[in-house]
Amino acid sequence: MRIALDAMGGDFAPGPIVAGAVQAVNDMPELIVLLVGQEERIIAELSRLEESGVTIHRDRLPIVHASEVVGMEDKPVEALRSKRDNSISKTWGLMATGKADAVVSAGNTGAMVASGLFNAKMFLPGVRRPGIAAIFPSNQGPVVLIDVGANMAPKPEDLYQYGLMGAVYAEKILGVTDPKIGLLNVGSEDDKGNDLVRSTRDLFMNGPNSAKFYGNVEGRDVYDGHARVIVSDGFTGNILLKGGEGAVEFLFSALRETMTRMMVELPPESAAKVAEGVKQLKRRYEYKEFGGAPLLGIRGACIICHGSSDDRAIRNALRVAANIGLSGVNDEITKMLASSVAEA
Amino acid sequence: MRIALDAMGGDFAPGPIVAGAVQAVNDMPELIVLLVGQEERIIAELSRLEESGVTIHRDRLPIVHASEVVGMEDKPVEALRSKRDNSISKTWGLMATGKADAVVSAGNTGAMVASGLFNAKMFLPGVRRPGIAAIFPSNQGPVVLIDVGANMAPKPEDLYQYGLMGAVYAEKILGVTDPKIGLLNVGSEDDKGNDLVRSTRDLFMNGPNSAKFYGNVEGRDVYDGHARVIVSDGFTGNILLKGGEGAVEFLFSALRETMTRMMVELPPESAAKVAEGVKQLKRRYEYKEFGGAPLLGIRGACIICHGSSDDRAIRNALRVAANIGLSGVNDEITKMLASSVAEA
Repeated sequence: MRIALDAMGGDFAPGPIVAGAVQAVNDMPELIVLLVGQEERIIAELSRLEESGVTIHRDRLPIVHASEVVGMEDKPVEALRSKRDNSISKTWGLMATGKADAVVSAGNTGAMVASGLFNAKMFLPGVRRPGIAAIFPSNQGPVVLIDVGANMAPKPEDLYQYGLMGAVYAEKILGVTDPKIGLLNVGSEDDKGNDLVRSTRDLFMNGPNSAKFYGNVEGRDVYDGHARVIVSDGFTGNILLKGGEGAVEFLFSALRETMTRMMVELPPESAAKVAEGVKQLKRRYEYKEFGGAPLLGIRGACIICHGSSDDRAIRNALRVAANIGLSGVNDEITKMLASSVAEA
Repeated sequence: MRIALDAMGGDFAPGPIVAGAVQAVNDMPELIVLLVGQEERIIAELSRLEESGVTIHRDRLPIVHASEVVGMEDKPVEALRSKRDNSISKTWGLMATGKADAVVSAGNTGAMVASGLFNAKMFLPGVRRPGIAAIFPSNQGPVVLIDVGANMAPKPEDLYQYGLMGAVYAEKILGVTDPKIGLLNVGSEDDKGNDLVRSTRDLFMNGPNSAKFYGNVEGRDVYDGHARVIVSDGFTGNILLKGGEGAVEFLFSALRETMTRMMVELPPESAAKVAEGVKQLKRRYEYKEFGGAPLLGIRGACIICHGSSDDRAIRNALRVAANIGLSGVNDEITKMLASSVAEA
């Protein structure tokens, strides 16, 4: 398994990116991570880690030099055009030429997606448009929300495919038995919403996989987990994802404030226990545990990580990328789409 | 000030609805609440409260009989058509004929909005389409998100008006000084998003109120409060609102679980303090405190409450409805729209 990692992508790159790669390679004896980016800076990070006593398998951490970096705030398409020798395009190039089985980046999401969608030969057979799947926590376990930003103006047929691809991912990678597909909407009744969701609903209801269709789900139902796959246009999905992150951050900061005020009134031992409880809770809801968002529908695998990813997040993303390759998700998606051509 | 209250609307109606009206009338000596619904059931609730010792100003709580009830799960337009003598249509009828200055309901939101939009004579001069404004908490204080469900397929001009109406509401009712208007989008860069948001952005940038425009805001920025008014199509706004509610509920249930596990290890006095802290925190983020969502752009006032509203939520909603009437919000909206005609 060979994964091309954008070593320059992320708010704190290349430090935590390189560190995450080193950890992943130490965890998985079959894994080779191609570190794509500015050679000198990557070497400096590797040396720094080595000096601090970390074991580094340099033979499984080859460096692929890319002189330019797409910034987190760069306009994606412009940046890809003007910075020809950038690390994002190079990771995709490595996958397109068979030198890597997967790509991972915590860099500019727009550039990562644009670079992947640019070459339609990288799409799996039958796929109309790849979609980004984000993983949410729920009362029943992880939930797949697809799309969260690859496709701002999808057709009903795109959303239909997202549901099927998401279901394969939930089953094969997240271990969900018979995942149901929900359609993100403003109410549970059939006729709710806009034209896009009504037409998409018809495709699911009348298609060969209608048994997998749960029906409409509302924004709050994401967290109950009755539908383990939730289909959305990329605009709304992105807003829901980031809105959820914002709500969680906001609440934790309020919780911290409340707790800090309360702590002074508690005996030290009690205060320590409360602090530990809150810390555990926070860890449960951090995006880091989910290891990034896969772009589904492409040959190979692509994991898009949060810009603020630390070494743990990168290590998890590399593990997920390897799993996609090993689990046969893509064969399953191809089969599923071929047998599920929907009549509009 | 006369407010027509849908006594039959809400998951637990008419009990908490009538109780909230009684409290509001006790709070505000000028207030008259018309209790609209099944007379016998309303009288029974009033008698029950009276027997338990609550002071009831029956002279300021007249009952307006409506024999039928729109159920929470009824299809709005169908229900309004088939149940002619329903309490929702009757509250709107009272406002249309000048017998009430405002309407309040915790019932079927779709029916409440459809009933209001049905009669365009109820729109304020210059208003294209009324929009529902939800109030979010943020680090800077309350934030207005408009629209959250009245308009599923708005035009850019509708969104532009929502921003201006929301700004008047934030200033006059929430007491925000010079509120900035943000446009809900998937990124901060100018060209992000779909056609709708790009055209809306142009209207704000080139309109006479460009100084009020903050720019694009993402899902997570709702909670930072830099823009105190956030404009969205009704579909996405609804998903963001309910997604936020879901995230908060989900997190509080996890918090409760963590705390319960921890409590047994704490001395009783510490455990009581922790429980009190969590309770206080929860209260801060409950929708009840915000008193429902106003439908902006109509003559008079309309407050749409959460289906699970209790007496406190209804009392707050009645207070907000009275404030809208007293504060001159509608005159200000009319002036603002007249002076802000945008050239597309």
